[in-house]
Amino acid sequence: MDKLRIGIVGAGRIGNVHAESITYHIPEAEVVMVTDPYEEGARKLAERFGVPKYSKDYMDIINNKDVDAVLVCSPTPTHAEITIAALKAGKHVFCEKPVHTSIECIKEVQKVAEETGLKLQIGFNRRFDHNHSHVQRLVQDGTLGNVELIKITSRDPEPPSPEYAASSGGLYIDMMIHDFDMAMFLAGCDVTEVYAMGTSLVDKRIGEAGDVDTAIVTLTFANGALGVIDNSRRAAYGYDQRVEVFGSLGMAADENDGDSTVRVSTAAGVVSDKPQFFFLERYMQSFTEEMRQFIKAIREDTEVPVGIHAGLMSVVLAKAAKKSLDEHRPVKVSEIYGG
Amino acid sequence: MDKLRIGIVGAGRIGNVHAESITYHIPEAEVVMVTDPYEEGARKLAERFGVPKYSKDYMDIINNKDVDAVLVCSPTPTHAEITIAALKAGKHVFCEKPVHTSIECIKEVQKVAEETGLKLQIGFNRRFDHNHSHVQRLVQDGTLGNVELIKITSRDPEPPSPEYAASSGGLYIDMMIHDFDMAMFLAGCDVTEVYAMGTSLVDKRIGEAGDVDTAIVTLTFANGALGVIDNSRRAAYGYDQRVEVFGSLGMAADENDGDSTVRVSTAAGVVSDKPQFFFLERYMQSFTEEMRQFIKAIREDTEVPVGIHAGLMSVVLAKAAKKSLDEHRPVKVSEIYGG
Amino acid sequence: MDKLRIGIVGAGRIGNVHAESITYHIPEAEVVMVTDPYEEGARKLAERFGVPKYSKDYMDIINNKDVDAVLVCSPTPTHAEITIAALKAGKHVFCEKPVHTSIECIKEVQKVAEETGLKLQIGFNRRFDHNHSHVQRLVQDGTLGNVELIKITSRDPEPPSPEYAASSGGLYIDMMIHDFDMAMFLAGCDVTEVYAMGTSLVDKRIGEAGDVDTAIVTLTFANGALGVIDNSRRAAYGYDQRVEVFGSLGMAADENDGDSTVRVSTAAGVVSDKPQFFFLERYMQSFTEEMRQFIKAIREDTEVPVGIHAGLMSVVLAKAAKKSLDEHRPVKVSEIYGG
Amino acid sequence: MDKLRIGIVGAGRIGNVHAESITYHIPEAEVVMVTDPYEEGARKLAERFGVPKYSKDYMDIINNKDVDAVLVCSPTPTHAEITIAALKAGKHVFCEKPVHTSIECIKEVQKVAEETGLKLQIGFNRRFDHNHSHVQRLVQDGTLGNVELIKITSRDPEPPSPEYAASSGGLYIDMMIHDFDMAMFLAGCDVTEVYAMGTSLVDKRIGEAGDVDTAIVTLTFANGALGVIDNSRRAAYGYDQRVEVFGSLGMAADENDGDSTVRVSTAAGVVSDKPQFFFLERYMQSFTEEMRQFIKAIREDTEVPVGIHAGLMSVVLAKAAKKSLDEHRPVKVSEIYGG
Repeated sequence: MDKLRIGIVGAGRIGNVHAESITYHIPEAEVVMVTDPYEEGARKLAERFGVPKYSKDYMDIINNKDVDAVLVCSPTPTHAEITIAALKAGKHVFCEKPVHTSIECIKEVQKVAEETGLKLQIGFNRRFDHNHSHVQRLVQDGTLGNVELIKITSRDPEPPSPEYAASSGGLYIDMMIHDFDMAMFLAGCDVTEVYAMGTSLVDKRIGEAGDVDTAIVTLTFANGALGVIDNSRRAAYGYDQRVEVFGSLGMAADENDGDSTVRVSTAAGVVSDKPQFFFLERYMQSFTEEMRQFIKAIREDTEVPVGIHAGLMSVVLAKAAKKSLDEHRPVKVSEIYGG
Repeated sequence: MDKLRIGIVGAGRIGNVHAESITYHIPEAEVVMVTDPYEEGARKLAERFGVPKYSKDYMDIINNKDVDAVLVCSPTPTHAEITIAALKAGKHVFCEKPVHTSIECIKEVQKVAEETGLKLQIGFNRRFDHNHSHVQRLVQDGTLGNVELIKITSRDPEPPSPEYAASSGGLYIDMMIHDFDMAMFLAGCDVTEVYAMGTSLVDKRIGEAGDVDTAIVTLTFANGALGVIDNSRRAAYGYDQRVEVFGSLGMAADENDGDSTVRVSTAAGVVSDKPQFFFLERYMQSFTEEMRQFIKAIREDTEVPVGIHAGLMSVVLAKAAKKSLDEHRPVKVSEIYGG
Repeated sequence: MDKLRIGIVGAGRIGNVHAESITYHIPEAEVVMVTDPYEEGARKLAERFGVPKYSKDYMDIINNKDVDAVLVCSPTPTHAEITIAALKAGKHVFCEKPVHTSIECIKEVQKVAEETGLKLQIGFNRRFDHNHSHVQRLVQDGTLGNVELIKITSRDPEPPSPEYAASSGGLYIDMMIHDFDMAMFLAGCDVTEVYAMGTSLVDKRIGEAGDVDTAIVTLTFANGALGVIDNSRRAAYGYDQRVEVFGSLGMAADENDGDSTVRVSTAAGVVSDKPQFFFLERYMQSFTEEMRQFIKAIREDTEVPVGIHAGLMSVVLAKAAKKSLDEHRPVKVSEIYGG
Repeated sequence: MDKLRIGIVGAGRIGNVHAESITYHIPEAEVVMVTDPYEEGARKLAERFGVPKYSKDYMDIINNKDVDAVLVCSPTPTHAEITIAALKAGKHVFCEKPVHTSIECIKEVQKVAEETGLKLQIGFNRRFDHNHSHVQRLVQDGTLGNVELIKITSRDPEPPSPEYAASSGGLYIDMMIHDFDMAMFLAGCDVTEVYAMGTSLVDKRIGEAGDVDTAIVTLTFANGALGVIDNSRRAAYGYDQRVEVFGSLGMAADENDGDSTVRVSTAAGVVSDKPQFFFLERYMQSFTEEMRQFIKAIREDTEVPVGIHAGLMSVVLAKAAKKSLDEHRPVKVSEIYGG
C-alpha cells in the first residue's frame, strides 16, 4: 500500500508538531501540502520537513486530488467549516479540539462525518500519553475493578494574559476541556452532571475579565462513579498533570514526568526534578502516537480512537460547568444537550 | 512541678491508647483513675498501666479531688454531659470527637468552658500526624504562599456493617469529620460553603440504610481558597490518608506510610509496601503527640492546640454536607450556624 | 509466668535505650537493678524508669539472686569479663557489640556460654530494623532466588574527632562491624575473603592518626555470592543506611527513613525529607525489637536471634579488612580465624 | 553552512540507530552513503532513510570526496583499520567502542588522529544519557563538592549464550567497558588501580568458557576517590542502569527509567513499572545526543566530547581488571599502560 498523503491546514505550532511526527516517525504517511493564510509560515514548514507544496488558501488542499487526509490545525473558529469542506471533498480529517464552541456546529460536523463515512478524529492527544493511557488500560482490563472515584489535576506553569483569558472562551473550555475528555476516557462512559467552582486567585484581572484561573469541578458519571477535576492557571513548580482512578479492586495514579530520575541529597534536602516545562515537552510523545493511530485507522479502515462524540461531549461539559458556575448549582448535562 | 493527675472516662480502645501514651511517653503526667460502666474493662486498663483506682461510675472521677484533668473517651452521646460535669468540677478536659451531634449541645459546652476558663481540647489527632502537620507548617511558615487549593483523601480499608453505618450518623459525621477538621487546619481558616456528593458503590445495603460509602465534598474557604475531600469506606490496598495543599509559591503533598521503605524488583514489577493497615497503626504517633500537647498546655497555661471551635465547626460542616446531599445544592455554612 | 527480672550494667546512652524499651514496651520483663561506676548515672536511670536498685559495682548485679538476665552496656573493653561473670553466675546475657577486640577473648566467652547453656545474645540491633529485616525475609523466603550480589551503604552524618578515631580501633571495627554483620545476615552465610580499600578524604587528621574515614570493602561469601560495603564518616545529607540484595529472581533494596513522606514542589525543585538524623532516631525501633526477642528467647527457651558466632565473625572480618588494607591484597578469613 | 555529509560503515543495528538520529533529528547533517559487506543490509538502510548511495566496500566511503565524516559501525576487529583509513583520507570519524582490544592499535589510532588534527569521537553513548549526564553536571558544577565515592550498577536483562561470552573478550571488555568509561566521566579523572572479582552464578557454562557473569570491580581514582562497579549478565526485573556519586557536599543518584510513572495499588501491593527493556529502549536518547554533539564539534571546530583517551583508558581498565581477576590481587593501571 502506498503512503497516505496528508495535507495540513495551519502552519502554527501544532501544525509543525504533526508534520514532524509524520515526517520522522510514521513511514506509512507523508505530508504533501501545507497551507496557512500567513504564507511565510506555510513556506517555512514546507522547507523544514521537505513538503513539496504550500499555499495561503486551505481550499488548495481541499481541491488537491493527491491529498487523502487533512489535518485541521487552524484557529478554533475555522475548525468546523474546514472539517466539513474536507469531508465533503472525500478526505479523512483529523481536527484539533475544540471542534467548535457551538454545539449546533459540532452536531453539523457529526452529521456530515456520518453521511460520508469518512474517518474523523479529534485531537485529544492526552489520551495517548504514556502515563494516562496506562491508567486507562488498567481500568479497561479490570485490574481496578468497578470505577468509583476519578481525580484529575491539571495546572499550567504560567497564567495567560488577562486579554487572552477574556478571548479564550474561559478556563472551562480553553483549559479544562482536556480534563473533561480525560475523565470520560478514564471512566469509559459519559458524565451526567457537573458542579463547578471557580475563582481568580492567580490574577485578579482574569476575574475582572469575567474568567476564573482556579477551579474545581465535580462530575457524576453515567456508571455511578464520582469525579473531580482541579485546575490552576499557574503552578510555581511547573506543568502539573496527574490522574488517579480508584476502583473496587484498587487504585492507579500517575506522577509527573521530570527530565531525569536523579535525586540530589545535600544538607538542604533531597531534591528531585520538577515536572517537564509545558505541554510541548510533556506531551510530545502523545502527539506522535495520536497521529500514528489516526493514520493506522485510515489504512486499516478501523474506528478512530477519538471520535466526534468526544469532541461534542467535552464542549457540552464545558458549557455545563460554565452554567453551573453562573447559576451556582449542579447542572445536569441533559440541560445542555440531549435532554 | 508535680505530675499532672489524669482520670480517664471510658476504658475502650481509645482510652487504652491515651493511657499508654501517658504512662510510657509523658513523664509529666500519670493516670490516677479510670472508669467504665463495664467495670471489667476499667479493671483491665488499670492493671495494664498500673492505674491505682478504677470504678464503674464516671462521677467518681468528677468527684475525685486528686484528678487534675479528665479524658472523655466514652461513647459519643455522653461526651458533652461528662465534659460539662468535669469542667464544672474544676477539671481540665480532653474530649474525643465529635463533642456532640447537636450544635446546641456543643455551644453549651463552649459556654461552660469559657465561663470556667479551664482547658478544653478536642481529639482531632490527625493534626498531630508527622506528615499532615509538616504540610500545615509549610502553609504557616509561608513556604507555599497564599493557599489556593486543598485536596484531602481518606479511605478506610474495610467498610463497616450496614447496621453500623445506619447508627453512626452517616459518613459525613462519622468519617469525614476528620477531613473537615483537617481542611480548616490546613487552610488556617473556616469554611463558608460546601457542596456534597455521595453514593453507595461499596455496599448497596449502606445505601438502603440511608447512608453513603463513597463521597466527594467541595469546600469554599473564608480566605477564598477552594478545597475538595474524597472518602471511600473501602480501599482494596488499605488505609489511604493523603493531603495536598497548593499555593501561590508551590505545593506540599504527603504520601501514605508503609511498614518499610523496601522495593522489591522481580519479573512481576517493582513492588513497594501498602499503606499501614488502619488508624491505630497509622496514627499512633499522633495520639501520643496530641496528649503531650494537651498536658503541656495545662502545665504551662497556654492555649490548647485544638479548641472547642474546631469541635463545633467540624460538626457544622458535617451537617451542611448532609443538607447539601439531601437538597442537591451548595449549602452555605451560615445556613447551619452563625448566619 | 512471672516477669523476667533484668539487671543493666552501664547507665550510658544505650543502657537507657534498653531500660526504656523494657519498661515501656515489654510487659513480660522489668528492670530490677542498674549499675554504673558513675553512680549518679545509675541513680538517674533508676529514677527515670522506676528501677528499685542501683549501685556502682556490676558485681552487685552478678550477685543479685533476683536478677534473671544481664544487659552488658558498659564500655567495650569490659564486655567479655562481665559477660563471663554473669554467665558463670547463671544469668542469661545480652552483650553489646563488639564483644571484644581480641578473638581469643571472644572464643573464651563462647566457650563459657556453651558450657553453661545459658542464652547469650549480641547487640547487632540493625538486624531488627523494619527495612533491613524485610529485605532479609525476602532472601529467606526465596522471593529473590539465589543471592548473587549484596551491597551495603553506611554513612554517618558527622565525623568523630581525630582523637576518637585514633582510640576507636579504627573504622573497620568501630563502624563497619555493623555492616559485616549485616552482610552475613543478608547472605545467610559466612564470608570467606575480604579486600579492603580505605582513605581519609573527610578529615586528613584521621589519616594522620592512622585511621581511614572513607572505605570500600568487597566480600566473597561462602555460598559464592559477592558483596561490597561502602562507609563514610560524613554524609552532608545525614545518616545514610541502605542495603540491596540481588538474586537470581530479583532484587530488594531499601531507602532511608525520613521524618515524613511530604514532598514540597516549588520553583526550586521537588524536595523530600533528608534521612533521620542519626542512629538513635533511625534505629530506635530496632533496639526495642532486639530486646523483645532476647526476652522471648529466654522465656520460651528458644535460640537467640543473634548468637556469639555473629559476635565472633564480625570482629574476624574487621581484622581481615584491616590486614587487607595494610598489606594491600585480598585476605582470606581463614588467615585470621579457623584456618 | 551546508549540511555535513556522513558515510556510515556498517549497516547493523547501531548503524541504523545513527542513521535514524541524523535523518530525523539532526537537520545539520545528512547520510550520503552506507556500506556493508552484507550488501542487502546496506541497501535496506539506504532505502529506509533515503540514503542516495550504498555498496559492499567501505573503501567506497573512504574514497568518496562528498563524505565529510565517517561513522565506524562495523564489527570491533575492523574499527581501528577503518578509522585510520578514514582519518588519512581527511575525514572526521565517529568510532564505536571498543576502538580495539589491543592497546598498541588504539595508540596507533591516537597517533594518526593527532597527526591529522581531524575530529575523532568514541561511541560511549551513556555519557549523553539524560540521567547519568545530570549526575555528572552536579559533579562538574560543584554541587557535590569533592568526589569521594562512586558506585555504578549495570545489569543486563538476559545473559548471552556461552558461545558469545567465550568470543566476546569477556565481561570486563564486552560489558563493563561502558562502566569504566562512566566511572572516569563521573570522577573527572583517570583510574590508577583496580581490583576485580568475578564468578559465574548466572550460567555455569559461561564460567566453563573462561568468562564471568557476575562481577564487582573496585577503583582508585587519580584524585583519591574510591569507586565500585557491579555487573550481572541477568537481572530478572530487566535492564538495571544506575549511578551514584557521593561527595563532600552531598550525593546524586539516578534511578532506572520505566515506561510510565504509574503506580498501581491493590491488595497485592503498590506496583511501579520495571526498568525499560534493554539498551535500545533505555539509551535511544543518548545515541541521538552523542551524534548531535559529534556533528556540532565538527561544524563549530570544537573539541569532541569523548576523545580517543577515553577509548584507550576504558580498554586499559578492562585489561587491568582481567589481570586482577587472574592474579587475584589489585593491579595498578601503570602495569598495563603508561607505567
